[in-house]
Amino acid sequence: MISLAAIALRMQGQVIGDEEIVITGVGSLQHAKAGDLAYYANTRYKPQLLNTKASAVLLTQDVAADCPVAAVVVGNPQLAFAQLARDFDKRSRVPMGIHATAQIDATATLGERVRIGPNVEVGAHSTIGDDVELGANVNVGAHSSIGNATALRANVVIYHDVHIGANCTIHSNATLGAEGFGIFPDDAGILQEIPQVGRVLIGDDVLIGPNSTVDRGTIDDTEIHDNVKIDDQVHIGHNCIVGAHSILCGCSGLGGSVSLGEYCVVAGGVGIAGEGPVSIAAGAQIGAMTYVSRDITEPGRYSGATLHTDNRTWRRNVLRLNELDSIAKRLRQVENLLDNAQPMLKAASKDK
Amino acid sequence: MISLAAIALRMQGQVIGDEEIVITGVGSLQHAKAGDLAYYANTRYKPQLLNTKASAVLLTQDVAADCPVAAVVVGNPQLAFAQLARDFDKRSRVPMGIHATAQIDATATLGERVRIGPNVEVGAHSTIGDDVELGANVNVGAHSSIGNATALRANVVIYHDVHIGANCTIHSNATLGAEGFGIFPDDAGILQEIPQVGRVLIGDDVLIGPNSTVDRGTIDDTEIHDNVKIDDQVHIGHNCIVGAHSILCGCSGLGGSVSLGEYCVVAGGVGIAGEGPVSIAAGAQIGAMTYVSRDITEPGRYSGATLHTDNRTWRRNVLRLNELDSIAKRLRQVENLLDNAQPMLKAASKDK
Amino acid sequence: MISLAAIALRMQGQVIGDEEIVITGVGSLQHAKAGDLAYYANTRYKPQLLNTKASAVLLTQDVAADCPVAAVVVGNPQLAFAQLARDFDKRSRVPMGIHATAQIDATATLGERVRIGPNVEVGAHSTIGDDVELGANVNVGAHSSIGNATALRANVVIYHDVHIGANCTIHSNATLGAEGFGIFPDDAGILQEIPQVGRVLIGDDVLIGPNSTVDRGTIDDTEIHDNVKIDDQVHIGHNCIVGAHSILCGCSGLGGSVSLGEYCVVAGGVGIAGEGPVSIAAGAQIGAMTYVSRDITEPGRYSGATLHTDNRTWRRNVLRLNELDSIAKRLRQVENLLDNAQPMLKAASKDK
Repeated sequence: MISLAAIALRMQGQVIGDEEIVITGVGSLQHAKAGDLAYYANTRYKPQLLNTKASAVLLTQDVAADCPVAAVVVGNPQLAFAQLARDFDKRSRVPMGIHATAQIDATATLGERVRIGPNVEVGAHSTIGDDVELGANVNVGAHSSIGNATALRANVVIYHDVHIGANCTIHSNATLGAEGFGIFPDDAGILQEIPQVGRVLIGDDVLIGPNSTVDRGTIDDTEIHDNVKIDDQVHIGHNCIVGAHSILCGCSGLGGSVSLGEYCVVAGGVGIAGEGPVSIAAGAQIGAMTYVSRDITEPGRYSGATLHTDNRTWRRNVLRLNELDSIAKRLRQVENLLDNAQPMLKAASKDK
Repeated sequence: MISLAAIALRMQGQVIGDEEIVITGVGSLQHAKAGDLAYYANTRYKPQLLNTKASAVLLTQDVAADCPVAAVVVGNPQLAFAQLARDFDKRSRVPMGIHATAQIDATATLGERVRIGPNVEVGAHSTIGDDVELGANVNVGAHSSIGNATALRANVVIYHDVHIGANCTIHSNATLGAEGFGIFPDDAGILQEIPQVGRVLIGDDVLIGPNSTVDRGTIDDTEIHDNVKIDDQVHIGHNCIVGAHSILCGCSGLGGSVSLGEYCVVAGGVGIAGEGPVSIAAGAQIGAMTYVSRDITEPGRYSGATLHTDNRTWRRNVLRLNELDSIAKRLRQVENLLDNAQPMLKAASKDK
Repeated sequence: MISLAAIALRMQGQVIGDEEIVITGVGSLQHAKAGDLAYYANTRYKPQLLNTKASAVLLTQDVAADCPVAAVVVGNPQLAFAQLARDFDKRSRVPMGIHATAQIDATATLGERVRIGPNVEVGAHSTIGDDVELGANVNVGAHSSIGNATALRANVVIYHDVHIGANCTIHSNATLGAEGFGIFPDDAGILQEIPQVGRVLIGDDVLIGPNSTVDRGTIDDTEIHDNVKIDDQVHIGHNCIVGAHSILCGCSGLGGSVSLGEYCVVAGGVGIAGEGPVSIAAGAQIGAMTYVSRDITEPGRYSGATLHTDNRTWRRNVLRLNELDSIAKRLRQVENLLDNAQPMLKAASKDK
């Protein structure tokens, strides 16, 4: 519970309306109810603003007049909302201390104020920083380290020699540090696995979504730099390097030895993989479901996926793709023929 | 073990052949052996019917004469088989009771006849219904609820404030309720995470496959309605709404704020995501590996994926895609030119 | 620690340089430091060979003269490296024995020298072979079997009646044997689930990556044959058969009843699924992100994905795909028209 006056004080904002209104929850403009705080930051939601049932809205000065309820004017409504909404999060943290059922190797080092849940296992020579939270059934392999204030939610698996920075969140059922996919046929054609002895190095403020996988490097390391945000079911192959401040959306995948520069955005379902290493320039943004097989050397937006249509139209056209080269060549022939005949045709056209 | 007479009684069917034949297992038409019951429901499998080694076949009246072995005539052979095959399932359920190693919060409420396996954790203020089965290492967060007769298989993770209806099955390593992917850059360009304080609401009779993920809503809820069936490794982003009786096949993914109407079918590998919310009409069926970025407003079948071909043909044609707009424009020019010259060309053509 | 002399002896190779150099780690040509052993097997990395800081390099005779440091000449440098690198792997195995917290059913059979970690559960009538390693929280269902020297890493879930051969590795959070996706509408249009009572049969020397899923068969079995290598987040649907020595790369998926012959290669993000069973010929190699909906009857390379380009080019061209059939037809009309008029146009062309 927090009053608008208190919100304004905390966010360096200005109340429009009754400062004593008390906020008891958060809501979207569309579905908020009495007691809820909402925010407005995108003109797409203007109609919802005009009809909101929220008790108050965080917004910028320019739209304050349009707000039908109390408001708090701030510089960045989304950021202010992000900070305030944390107070209304119902999640209960793992209690401070080490659960009686946890298995902590005698050679592991634990920081201050750790929160270690039931059935957690921490391997030999591993280091757990201050204020770290390890949910139930988390498994941390040998020689690994978890930085201060990082949270690993229930059932996360961290293999050996994986190093995670501070203030990270790794969601449930993610697997970090599994041996990457180094397969080659021996002289008899039998597939062999190259041992994967590189590490995984993860920076600070990294988010990794549930059921995502980050494989360890073959010889060198797999690296995810500071402030990278990774969604659900994303796959990062061995020896990838993901530059700081990059975003990877759900179900995207990087094959082995893909490197992304800083501030890249990889949309959902994208696949990046080549015969050899693939390098993506800093600032590149790749559209959903795109397949990238070659380097991208300049920042900018890139796409490749085809668009949906009704099945009849799709079937008629998709089969023609295999004729496209022939179509291009035949059109060129027609043009050449007409080019040669052009004077006569022009004359004919004038005669009409 | 069940006799054909008993099967006929239970399924309101009619035996053709020896009523005293005893069924000891189930099999496919192709691979069934003596003692097995098979079923026939699709003309694709007619050759297998004619050669089956099953002891009896569930089928409809019209094909009874073609069956080389005993048969039970029923209205819906597939449905009858589905009901009978359950008796031959070898899976052992979690024993009734609460395993000694389970950690149930003192404020949690448990129903009658619960089956709670080893190392399960149930968080504060959560409610577990009657006849619920929680496999080993299942983790249920605080303020969540699991409806009657729902089964969560080993290693499922349910975050806090997630509400699952009755008669659902959630398969292993699925993660429900993880914080969705709400990322935005602050004024300094540093990526920030919006707290995700919405819930996940799941109806009755819902199936969720192994390693699938359903993220909680940002502010409003993520909803999966009654009788939805979700396959393996499917991703449902925050604030999605999946209408009742819809099917999502393996490896499909919904980005944030995608809504499906009732009775939709999303085939394998499909990705649905847009810049803003995307809405799919009830009854829409989307073909495998299709990318949907815009609303679909009418029921019907939709596709967009390209088809495979041999590498040489593919390479030759796929590179031409970037010329397609130019091809279309050049063809139009040619047509215009010929249109103007048509009278003369027709004359010339006649002259031949 | 191993000397070059010892390496040469073990690998039947020949030292070029100081035999007494001691190797203390492994490294890539590019990043190796003093004490490291590297290998050279691909001309792509020739520049790195010429500048390597490794203490020694495994290589073939023909490039020995180019190596700036000591070398060991062997027949297959990659294979030799794979064997030697294992000695430098830091992973700690589960200790021999059965952890006090493991739950082994009284009817299960355990082999010699098993390594069973904390909170493992092994179900009734299951068989665990010699030298098997089960990581923390592994769950093995009833009536299943794990072959000699197979390792299941932490948090793997094996359902009932799943049979895994010898020398396999199954990585964390993989789920094998979940009920496949057999959904059909009953007469009232309500979706029903066909019980999935087939098994999963996995051969010897199989690798399955983290968070991959292999569903059990509906009635017949799902089969993965010897020496198959499966990467992260791969999905294998019910009743698939994967032929020996095949490779499936990350994020690929097989729908139900897909069969691959031997020695197939399925690249990342590929989806194979049809209305009915789909059969892929032995030796077929399918390029990344390709959708395969029909049988492939001959070995060879196949692809279907479109390529990325800058967003402006992409948008201009992708929208034209829906005109492609019309373009093809109109081009044919133009050609026919010109064909008829050809004599006159040729004459006109000569007149120029």
